[in-house]
Amino acid sequence: MSSKHIVVIPGDGIGAEITAEALRVSQSAAKKCGFSFTHESKQAGGAAIDAYGVPLPEDTIEACRKADGVLLGAVGGPKWDNVAPELRAEKAILGLRKSLGLYANLRPIKVFPALAAQSPLKPEIVSEVDILIVRELNGGIYYGARQEAVIVNEVEQAWDREGYSRPEIERILRLACRSAIGRKGKVTSVDKANVLATSRLWRKVANEVAADFTQVEINHMYVDNCAMQLVLNPGSFDVLVTGNLFGDILSDEAAVLSGSIGLLPSASLGDGTGLYEPIHGSAPDIAGLGLANPLGTILSAAMMFRYSLGSEQVAAMIEAAVDQVLADGYRTPDIYQQGLTKVSTEEMGQQVINRLK
Amino acid sequence: MSSKHIVVIPGDGIGAEITAEALRVSQSAAKKCGFSFTHESKQAGGAAIDAYGVPLPEDTIEACRKADGVLLGAVGGPKWDNVAPELRAEKAILGLRKSLGLYANLRPIKVFPALAAQSPLKPEIVSEVDILIVRELNGGIYYGARQEAVIVNEVEQAWDREGYSRPEIERILRLACRSAIGRKGKVTSVDKANVLATSRLWRKVANEVAADFTQVEINHMYVDNCAMQLVLNPGSFDVLVTGNLFGDILSDEAAVLSGSIGLLPSASLGDGTGLYEPIHGSAPDIAGLGLANPLGTILSAAMMFRYSLGSEQVAAMIEAAVDQVLADGYRTPDIYQQGLTKVSTEEMGQQVINRLK
Ligand SMILES: [Mg+2]
Ligand SMILES: [Mg+2]
Repeated sequence: MSSKHIVVIPGDGIGAEITAEALRVSQSAAKKCGFSFTHESKQAGGAAIDAYGVPLPEDTIEACRKADGVLLGAVGGPKWDNVAPELRAEKAILGLRKSLGLYANLRPIKVFPALAAQSPLKPEIVSEVDILIVRELNGGIYYGARQEAVIVNEVEQAWDREGYSRPEIERILRLACRSAIGRKGKVTSVDKANVLATSRLWRKVANEVAADFTQVEINHMYVDNCAMQLVLNPGSFDVLVTGNLFGDILSDEAAVLSGSIGLLPSASLGDGTGLYEPIHGSAPDIAGLGLANPLGTILSAAMMFRYSLGSEQVAAMIEAAVDQVLADGYRTPDIYQQGLTKVSTEEMGQQVINRLK
Repeated sequence: MSSKHIVVIPGDGIGAEITAEALRVSQSAAKKCGFSFTHESKQAGGAAIDAYGVPLPEDTIEACRKADGVLLGAVGGPKWDNVAPELRAEKAILGLRKSLGLYANLRPIKVFPALAAQSPLKPEIVSEVDILIVRELNGGIYYGARQEAVIVNEVEQAWDREGYSRPEIERILRLACRSAIGRKGKVTSVDKANVLATSRLWRKVANEVAADFTQVEINHMYVDNCAMQLVLNPGSFDVLVTGNLFGDILSDEAAVLSGSIGLLPSASLGDGTGLYEPIHGSAPDIAGLGLANPLGTILSAAMMFRYSLGSEQVAAMIEAAVDQVLADGYRTPDIYQQGLTKVSTEEMGQQVINRLK
């Protein structure tokens, strides 16, 4: 009997509703698998600003550090848009990533057969999509040295530095290669090595790391070509690994292929506690109305069982139940189509629970 | 009577066939409009390596500098893949850009109604697409300082510097704003100003430049969101202006929306002679067989009349004829579909000529 502990951070807007359903589903699935875990709830984002005056209280950080996994709903909303920059609700996520040493963002992009028709792409192009995007989260140009606008020799200019070190590249590539095992075993490393020095180091180290994984085949793709191939031929990808900036662009491009952002989960991993959250926002306009789609959070919980709690069995059980709920025609309003069954946030959670087996 | 002069650079592979048709169409359209121009042919790329030992002979550069416009087919091929890096056929393009001071790359992405079905996107999403991407071509991280892999404090690392100066941003924004007049008057400037200092300067200068253009409305979009919106809602864009790296990624992503790269033209502009070329490559595998699609080159010639030769009338006449040829069902093999009329490179050129009016 395992005894894992998780922290649930509902956050703001629809966060409370969607995390409540993800927790119910998690508890039910764990019970069926003979897996036990405890949980506690903590605040972050606007809710924490209201209660404590800061978006990420020390108490929350401490609890997360000690936990095996953190499940987060969403943070932010117009109520907190006019606070000082360092107090913005979104700082809670950046602060958590930093405190937990999270350096990898994992985003699975899967097209559910029942939802393929909602993709902007033609059904025959999206039907086979099952991509895992592994984005480096802690380095690159987003965290490099920079110079705000300044006048040098009478010319106003600004700059930012892109850069990676060998250890940063090694750890993200190892994670990507490990993730490919049990999938199709194919890792596509994306860079711009025909131009950038950083990319040439990235590519060299990627090849060295991949050589240690005999079950994994690595190939390389330029970022501009990758942006094309994600639209032309998204079914050809398995694991896609790249740096922070390219990963930001490509993971957002890939997200819309699925046809519904409300269903997409994510994991942020480091060497300790992992953070799990849907990729959608806090949708304050529909908060508290039972209209929110909890599936992105439920699938994030499944990822938590896989990557942080050590139960592939619970993860797979939740994912199979979500597949089945969609195949059976249950839809929250964001993905509703005529002729199907419209359900509330809570009803959707219950329908997933009913199909856990 | 105007007396403009152009240089035609066939280049390698299918280059000779496609530029021949573009020249025939240009001469025929010009004649109908009472517009006269002279032309001469020059070599660059692999053909120049074979003839002169260098990919971009001085003689070609000189002729291009003196000309009003340069029409290029395509360069490169496996025959020249194993030469020294500085002799590679592709260096001809980089050399020409530099010699001619070209700082803006313009790529119109238009979906022809007759070809909408070939897009990877659903027809209802692509039908309204008419985007002009204006990419800065001369600065940013592709031309910044860089450090190849080096060991510092026992850690191997590499870096590249992204940066822009006010004059570089001003000139590309002015060009984008001018381009928007006569279109929908909407300029979307793409950056990552929530993170990058370079983007913050870019956004500030963009607003200042746009303020001088009363007919133009400017808005700003983050690059990751733009990568999404190009797939979700490509019909919402008019002119999209961005830096070198973001422009590389987004223009390639946008290119595939059209369903056929063989039809997409481009212009590279500076303060002197402009360079016009299709975005596709030299396709050595089908060279000389009459299978190549000349429409990308023909539409590049139309852009040359618009931006370098000062005849919107000739440009519009060529573009209308291409529309009509496609509507009438003529197709080269790359875009052929059952039930339509398959034609050779030369026949396609002739069908365009037949519809000039
Ligand atoms: Mg993003
Ligand atoms: Mg490119």
